[in-house]
Amino acid sequence: MALIVQKYGGTSVGNPERIKNVARRVAAAQAAGDQIVVVVSAMSGETNRLIGLAKEIQPNPDARELDVVVSTGEQVTIGLLCMALIERGVKARSYTGAQVRILTDSSFTKARILKIDEDRMRKDLDDGHVIVVAGFQGVDDLGNITTLGRGGSDTTGVALAAALRADECQIYTDVDGVYTTDPRIVPEARKLDRITFEEMLEMASLGSKILQIRSVEFAGKYKVRLRVLSSFEEGGEGTLITFEEDIKMEQPIISGIAFNRDEAKLTVLGVPDRPGIAYQILGPIADANIDVDMIIQNVSHDGLTDFSFTVNRNDYERTTKILEDVKAHAGAREVRGDRSMAKVSVVGVGMRSHVGIASKMFRTLAEEGINIQMISTSEIKISVAIDEKYLELAVRVLHKAFELDQVGA
Amino acid sequence: MALIVQKYGGTSVGNPERIKNVARRVAAAQAAGDQIVVVVSAMSGETNRLIGLAKEIQPNPDARELDVVVSTGEQVTIGLLCMALIERGVKARSYTGAQVRILTDSSFTKARILKIDEDRMRKDLDDGHVIVVAGFQGVDDLGNITTLGRGGSDTTGVALAAALRADECQIYTDVDGVYTTDPRIVPEARKLDRITFEEMLEMASLGSKILQIRSVEFAGKYKVRLRVLSSFEEGGEGTLITFEEDIKMEQPIISGIAFNRDEAKLTVLGVPDRPGIAYQILGPIADANIDVDMIIQNVSHDGLTDFSFTVNRNDYERTTKILEDVKAHAGAREVRGDRSMAKVSVVGVGMRSHVGIASKMFRTLAEEGINIQMISTSEIKISVAIDEKYLELAVRVLHKAFELDQVGA
Repeated sequence: MALIVQKYGGTSVGNPERIKNVARRVAAAQAAGDQIVVVVSAMSGETNRLIGLAKEIQPNPDARELDVVVSTGEQVTIGLLCMALIERGVKARSYTGAQVRILTDSSFTKARILKIDEDRMRKDLDDGHVIVVAGFQGVDDLGNITTLGRGGSDTTGVALAAALRADECQIYTDVDGVYTTDPRIVPEARKLDRITFEEMLEMASLGSKILQIRSVEFAGKYKVRLRVLSSFEEGGEGTLITFEEDIKMEQPIISGIAFNRDEAKLTVLGVPDRPGIAYQILGPIADANIDVDMIIQNVSHDGLTDFSFTVNRNDYERTTKILEDVKAHAGAREVRGDRSMAKVSVVGVGMRSHVGIASKMFRTLAEEGINIQMISTSEIKISVAIDEKYLELAVRVLHKAFELDQVGA
Repeated sequence: MALIVQKYGGTSVGNPERIKNVARRVAAAQAAGDQIVVVVSAMSGETNRLIGLAKEIQPNPDARELDVVVSTGEQVTIGLLCMALIERGVKARSYTGAQVRILTDSSFTKARILKIDEDRMRKDLDDGHVIVVAGFQGVDDLGNITTLGRGGSDTTGVALAAALRADECQIYTDVDGVYTTDPRIVPEARKLDRITFEEMLEMASLGSKILQIRSVEFAGKYKVRLRVLSSFEEGGEGTLITFEEDIKMEQPIISGIAFNRDEAKLTVLGVPDRPGIAYQILGPIADANIDVDMIIQNVSHDGLTDFSFTVNRNDYERTTKILEDVKAHAGAREVRGDRSMAKVSVVGVGMRSHVGIASKMFRTLAEEGINIQMISTSEIKISVAIDEKYLELAVRVLHKAFELDQVGA
C-alpha cells in the first residue's frame, strides 16, 4: 500500500463537473489500494475574483486581511471535493491549512512553511479516509491565517508529501507533462518523459508555469518523488522529476527553452565601487520582500560602477521608490528603469560538458536582430534579458536552433 | 467609554460600496469614543451561491463539509471590512469564529454556542482596534468548523455582547425597526419604538425575519440591551427590545401580526393513545435535528388518537421518511402530510389581561372564508395554521381588525 499525494490545480477543479471528475480519479486511486491525500487550489478565477473585490475596497490591500479573504478560495474547494467523494461512497475529510496544522511564518501573502503536524491526518488515513487539504495556506503561531503566495498549492502538496513520507507527489495540471518549451509559442515543442530537479528548478523559476519553484526546491531537499500529469487525459505517465543520478548517460544537451514575460529592469548608475555596495542597494529590496532575479554589476570606471538587476514587473513601482531612497544614501548618480523586459533561457544538465552552447545562443539571436541587454549564466542554464516584444520570436528560433523538435535531440 | 457590538447583515455589506459605507459608520462610532466590535454576515447572495455549488455536487450536502464551504462567505466579509477600515486609518483586525474562539457543539449546520473566549478581543480593543468577527460560525472542540444555521449572525452578535458585557448590541438591517407586520404585505404597517423580549421572541419565531429567534433568547437570558436599526438611514433610533418591566402601563393589547410561509403539516392517524406515544413519534424527529413547531393531539376515540405537527417545509421529506418508520413501530394507521401550510399569529403582551382576542381573530378569518386547520395559543400569542394561498389576505384583514395601522392602538 503506497501513500500518494495528489495535487489538483484551479483549472482541474474549475466547476462542479470537474470536481466530480477529480473525485472519480481519487476514488479509483484509493480503490487500487493506496492511501490518498489530495491538495487542491481555488476554483479557477476565484482567487482573482477575491483579489478584485479586495482592490475595490483598498487599492493596496492590507496583507493580513488579504490572506483572510483569498484563503477562502481553497476552503470552498476542499468542502466541495469531499462532498463529491462522499457522494461516491468514499470516506473523506477536509482540512484547512490551520486545521492540518501547516505552521508558517507571519509573512502574509508570501509565508513560508515551518512545520506540518501529521498526527491527525495519519489517524484519518488509517481509518480509511481520503484527506483533502486546502493548498496555498497555513497559519502562524498566533493563529493568523497566512498564504504562501501564488502557486503555493504545489508547495503545500510537496510539503505534505515530505511530512508524510509519501511514495509519490503527483501534480495534476492542464498540461500532460513538461515540454521543451511552451507549445502555445512553439507548436513543435515535445513532452519530456523525465527531467532533473535542477533543470526543473531552472525551468520553473524562468516561468514555465507548470510547477511553482518553491515546490521543486522542497521536493529536491526532501527527496520527494514528483510527477507532473494531466488531470484531463487518462493513462498518461506525465513527466517524472528525477534526481540527476537516475538519468541515463545518453541525455540531451539542452532540455528546454524557458522564458519569463513579466520582468522589469532597474539600474543604479554611477555608484561608488566600494565593499558592501551591493548589500546597500539590495538589502532594502530584500527587506521589502521583493524577489530579485538577474543581478549584474559592471566593471568600474574612476571608482564608480553601474549596478543592474531585474524584478517581477508587479514590484517595479515599489522597487523604484526604494531605490530613490537608496540613491542619496549610497551616493549614486541616477536610477533608471525599464518595465518591458523578458527573459529567455536555454536549460540543460548536459550543458556542463559541452562548449559552444552560449555562442550558438547569442549567434541565433543576433541573426534575428534581437539585442541582448543582460546575460547571466549558471551551471545548467544561460539566460538573456531582451525587449519583451521579441520574446516569442526568440523562443521559436532557439527551440529550432537546438533541435528540440527532434526526438532524441 | 461604552462597548458596542454592531451587527450588519448581508444586504448591508452586499457590495464594496456598502462595505465602505459600513466602515464609515463604524469609524464614526469609534471616533465618538466607544469601543466597537462588529459582526458581519456574508455578502447578500453569497451563502445561496455557495449552497447552490454544494448541491450541484451533492443534492444533500454532507453537513460537516457544507459548513466548511458556507463559512467562507462571512470570512470574505470580515477581511474586506477590515481593509475598508484600515483604508480610513482605523486600526482593525478580523477574526473568524475559530480565531475568536467561539466554541460550539458539533451539530454541523445548526451548532449551538457553548463558550466564547474574550481575552484576545479584549486585548485588541484595549489597543484601540476595531474587532470584526465573522458571524454565523464557530468551531467545535476537535477544531471542526461549524455554522449556527441561517440567521446565526444575529446570535453571534448577541453572544459576543454577552461575553464582553457590552453596553448595547445593535442589529443593523435593511429595515429601520420592528413593524406591526410586514409592510410589503400591509402598507399601513407601523414601526414600533419598543417591543418586549417576549413579543419579539414570538414575532421572530413566527417569521418576521428581522431577528433570529435564538439571538433574542440569548439577549433575554443574558440581559443584553438589543436594538434594531437601519444600516441605510442615518439618525434613526430603530426599535429597542426591552424587558417587560421597562414598558409603561398603557400599552397596546396587540403589538403585531407575525407569519411564517414555509410550514408543512404532518399527521399520524389512528395511533394508540397510551403514555409515551408523543415521545415515540417526536423523539426520532428531534434526534434528526428537525425543529417541530405547532403540536396538536386530538381527543381519542376507541383508544386511538390523531397526532399533528408542523415542521419547516425544507424538512418535509426527511420527516415523512422518519414517520413511515415510526408508523409500524407505533402501530399507527396512516401518515398524512400537507406541504403548503402557512402560520399567522397575533402577538402582544397586553393579550393576557384581555378576553376576546381569540374570538375576534377567528371571526375575522371566518368572514373572509379562510379555514383554520390548526390552532395553538400561548400567554402572548394566538397562532393558526391555514392554507398558504390565504396568507396575505389573512395578515391584511387581521392587521386592520386589530387597528394596528392606528397610532396608539
